[in-house]
Amino acid sequence: MTQEIFPSWPDSAAHLIDVAAGRRAADMIITGGIWVNVHTREALVGHDIAIAVGRIAFVGADASHCRGEQTQIIEAHGRYMIPGLCDAHMHIESGMLTPAEFARAVIPHGTTSMFTDPHEIANVLGLKGVRMMHDEALMQPINIFTQMPSCAPSAPGLETTGFEITAEDVAEAMHWPGIIGLGEMMNFPGVSGADPKMLAEIAATQHAGKTVGGHYASPDLGPAFAAYVAGGPADDHEGTCEADAIARVRQGMRAMMRLGSAWYDVESQITAITGKGLDPRSFILCTDDCHSGTLVNDGHMNRVVRHAIDCGCDPLVALQMATINTATHFGLEREIGSLTPGRRADVILTSDLDTLPIELVIARGKIVAEGDTCLVDCPHYDWPAAARQTVNMGRELTAKDFLIPAPEGANAVMANVIGVVENQAPTKALQFELRVTEGRVQAGGEVCQIALVERHRGTGNVVNAFVSGFGYEGAMAMASTVAHDSHHMIVVGTDEEQMALAANRLRDVGGGITIFRDGAELALVELPIAGLMSDSPAPEVAAKAEAMMEAMRDCGCKLYNAYMQHSLLALVVIPELRISDLGLVDVRKFEFIPLLESHT
Amino acid sequence: MTQEIFPSWPDSAAHLIDVAAGRRAADMIITGGIWVNVHTREALVGHDIAIAVGRIAFVGADASHCRGEQTQIIEAHGRYMIPGLCDAHMHIESGMLTPAEFARAVIPHGTTSMFTDPHEIANVLGLKGVRMMHDEALMQPINIFTQMPSCAPSAPGLETTGFEITAEDVAEAMHWPGIIGLGEMMNFPGVSGADPKMLAEIAATQHAGKTVGGHYASPDLGPAFAAYVAGGPADDHEGTCEADAIARVRQGMRAMMRLGSAWYDVESQITAITGKGLDPRSFILCTDDCHSGTLVNDGHMNRVVRHAIDCGCDPLVALQMATINTATHFGLEREIGSLTPGRRADVILTSDLDTLPIELVIARGKIVAEGDTCLVDCPHYDWPAAARQTVNMGRELTAKDFLIPAPEGANAVMANVIGVVENQAPTKALQFELRVTEGRVQAGGEVCQIALVERHRGTGNVVNAFVSGFGYEGAMAMASTVAHDSHHMIVVGTDEEQMALAANRLRDVGGGITIFRDGAELALVELPIAGLMSDSPAPEVAAKAEAMMEAMRDCGCKLYNAYMQHSLLALVVIPELRISDLGLVDVRKFEFIPLLESHT
Repeated sequence: MTQEIFPSWPDSAAHLIDVAAGRRAADMIITGGIWVNVHTREALVGHDIAIAVGRIAFVGADASHCRGEQTQIIEAHGRYMIPGLCDAHMHIESGMLTPAEFARAVIPHGTTSMFTDPHEIANVLGLKGVRMMHDEALMQPINIFTQMPSCAPSAPGLETTGFEITAEDVAEAMHWPGIIGLGEMMNFPGVSGADPKMLAEIAATQHAGKTVGGHYASPDLGPAFAAYVAGGPADDHEGTCEADAIARVRQGMRAMMRLGSAWYDVESQITAITGKGLDPRSFILCTDDCHSGTLVNDGHMNRVVRHAIDCGCDPLVALQMATINTATHFGLEREIGSLTPGRRADVILTSDLDTLPIELVIARGKIVAEGDTCLVDCPHYDWPAAARQTVNMGRELTAKDFLIPAPEGANAVMANVIGVVENQAPTKALQFELRVTEGRVQAGGEVCQIALVERHRGTGNVVNAFVSGFGYEGAMAMASTVAHDSHHMIVVGTDEEQMALAANRLRDVGGGITIFRDGAELALVELPIAGLMSDSPAPEVAAKAEAMMEAMRDCGCKLYNAYMQHSLLALVVIPELRISDLGLVDVRKFEFIPLLESHT
Repeated sequence: MTQEIFPSWPDSAAHLIDVAAGRRAADMIITGGIWVNVHTREALVGHDIAIAVGRIAFVGADASHCRGEQTQIIEAHGRYMIPGLCDAHMHIESGMLTPAEFARAVIPHGTTSMFTDPHEIANVLGLKGVRMMHDEALMQPINIFTQMPSCAPSAPGLETTGFEITAEDVAEAMHWPGIIGLGEMMNFPGVSGADPKMLAEIAATQHAGKTVGGHYASPDLGPAFAAYVAGGPADDHEGTCEADAIARVRQGMRAMMRLGSAWYDVESQITAITGKGLDPRSFILCTDDCHSGTLVNDGHMNRVVRHAIDCGCDPLVALQMATINTATHFGLEREIGSLTPGRRADVILTSDLDTLPIELVIARGKIVAEGDTCLVDCPHYDWPAAARQTVNMGRELTAKDFLIPAPEGANAVMANVIGVVENQAPTKALQFELRVTEGRVQAGGEVCQIALVERHRGTGNVVNAFVSGFGYEGAMAMASTVAHDSHHMIVVGTDEEQMALAANRLRDVGGGITIFRDGAELALVELPIAGLMSDSPAPEVAAKAEAMMEAMRDCGCKLYNAYMQHSLLALVVIPELRISDLGLVDVRKFEFIPLLESHT
């Protein structure tokens, strides 16, 4: 796999100097624009930008001295010239797209830099999977920096991942060309408890001079938070209220405020700037997780910046939070994040700073999008068989695998049931009395079955349990190999035959999402790469995902974001009750509990 | 020579976490202060700071959970707690003090971090001299980061230095533990002209991930400036007016605004913030050059911050410009520059943010000064003989060495004369008609003699010329081995006997400054280390320097800052006329000119 290595500033310096001095012609000149200067926080009318070898050579009132016969001239016609937008923390896998297709989807939205943590593939394929994502990232025409995943498994002892990430893996990855730091350190109790493995990962990152990503998902801002900060994470995107943002910034972290497909944490935190008047330099915008539908219909970082402006933020400050603030945080201030000499020529032309229409996108000195159209090739990595054949269940499943036997002689049982709560990531630990028929416990009413099917090591294991809140009716089942964070397979259904059909279908297609009713498949999203991603274009994946959600609604599920709820039911780090390949987990106590409590 | 290596954050993380969590006692707690938060730009009353292993472990409203029986308690009594001050660019040699004695002088002023470019010793002792300075710097109880000198000689071909700095030297030094980047790239025509040697030094620094210091000493903000920026220097401290500062920051550089003993560039540039309202994050304060007298009588970075406030700058912004802005610029934001967990515990207590009295200074968790008194040891490097015996004139000089022969048969000559201009670094290229007596040209009136005595290679060479403007009367001579930038010896005098006496005296004492009249020494400042620095305490050196300046006044010199004028007369990069070991240099054209133009 060939990687195009983009020449560094020192590699290009002599050329850039000659262009700036007028001794050599620029490759491209953008003329007559309003220079949005994120260093000074100014919009300066009547400026030209001269570009050579993919970098900015000159910015000034008149670049005619840099002009040659071959120089491509872009007339800005008084439009704003803004730096390409940066997504400071995100997971490409959340789009169910490969890095190439994700890039292709976001380039017309003006995103030219992303800091991505391939945490999901790390759970499935370990360090090798991270390297594949990293390598495809480096092939793209925009800047995709990789944050080395820190926590696989997320909950050691409570789940089994395909592979584990070790401190040695982290130390090794720090030498890869595209690694920018450590991905979100989610094991915050581990850091606060000075867990040597977590501290070794942080130390390896700090010794490499790179940035340690944080993830402190607790409202407790007392000593536990202070201990986490003392451990070294340099940013955090888990804040949800103004006090969270303020606490992080005061303690010397960057507050990353996210607007993802299902995250709405900008409006509640940006008041730290718009209301309290804090210095905005330590605040950064990001998406964390975007579904392909969001990318196709709503945008990407342009959506986040617009939203920040809608929340009352000065457009120039909002742009700083998506450009220079991000670059500075990652030590890339002299490489990206502003329209100044030496930096990669990542430029957006837009007519309006408030509504931010993305009219022309230039990345590394080449036009990559105009209007809504991506004009550049986003090369695909040659994903090996090991990455495309990850649904390893060991055997074909049958309805019997999903039968839940009742205790001898029982007529009814009291069962622990995972209670889905609309619009909330945490579940409720509920108990329902369920009846027993022919020796098996029967779901019914608002309770249906959930199964965690092991798919990494071919053990053939199936863990069965109950879930409430989806509202499914009739004989149906839905299965997904996107099953955070260990990404086995989650099957939810009202009928064991349909559950087996759905599970086997995903085995056949190499992973994805499917939904069956009465023996027929209603919708399928193929995710052949690691069971997490498609290498089809975003509009196709978005259409299939939409059809899948429509099918869920057809089966009686009226929950908002129901698919996301489904995919999070094995996330054994968020309370209260979850399922893993090892059993039913009470996440309030981080311990296993039995499925059935008692019977009559 | 033992170097104490201060443990890194990752080395200390487990300890810091335990203190923050309340599981282990802090070494020190500062209680009840006003937390000056340079990240958010706030002053927050009622805060405690807990310190352990030299770093900050916890900052919050109540650190009592970090308190143990052995914990040292510092009562802030409602005073402000501010981060230790950073001098972003400076030359220790300008104080005529070793790093140890410079540190001892500035610690009571609250300076806890300095970014020092040992450019002067580089000219005398080359890379080995830089290493000695670097090593003594690392021995100090405060943070002294070394910028690798970039330009020795400053003017290749126009002067001969003791040693030269090569691009290979720069690449090697980037691996030393205390090197933070490249010192000011003074060869701005070289960079604008894409000189391969200059670009190689910049590239070596950038490849090492370090900061390239700039020095663009020209009012021309056209293509020559743009070309310099495109070459890679990341900061510049040579700006003198608002337009300079704005241009640098808009182009993505940091504007370093200096208040040195003889630099007054803050007031004229800070209006970019106070008047134009630019984002202050890219503005930084520094001193560049401070004489020992300034350190003893006026202060150091506290003087600069006070001055910025006097110029109308918000005190919190002024403090940012001497703390976090500097730290961020050098990639040290998680190490110094703010009072937040993990950072080195460099803390100042002060009762007033406007007048900034420095009442208590803590560095790396230890009290290092209280009131005006330094309470900590500043260890001396064991300077080798090679560093202490640098006045290598090859032979004893006599009055004959300073005779300027007239052309055969001349009665009078037209001579080129260096014209000193009060309060200006540039000189004037003047011409005077001088009379001839006994075959030699006679100075007289406002013209006296100047000689450049070679002292690095023992050539015995003396270059004679004329200078006007000092106003010396009687039979006197003044000699100095501080002679920017190549630091040979400059002797200025009215009498060749006195000139020989003064030169030989400096040879005997190993360098420094002396002034003779009528055969008697009026004052002497011994600078035995490289002929540039004393390892005596600052007050002693300041007193001797003051006595020397008094003696200059006694000899008729009424110029303000006359000693500085003397020491700059060989600085062959500043127009118009200078002297070097190779002759008289017209710095308008960078070429040699004859001493005598014509005769009658």
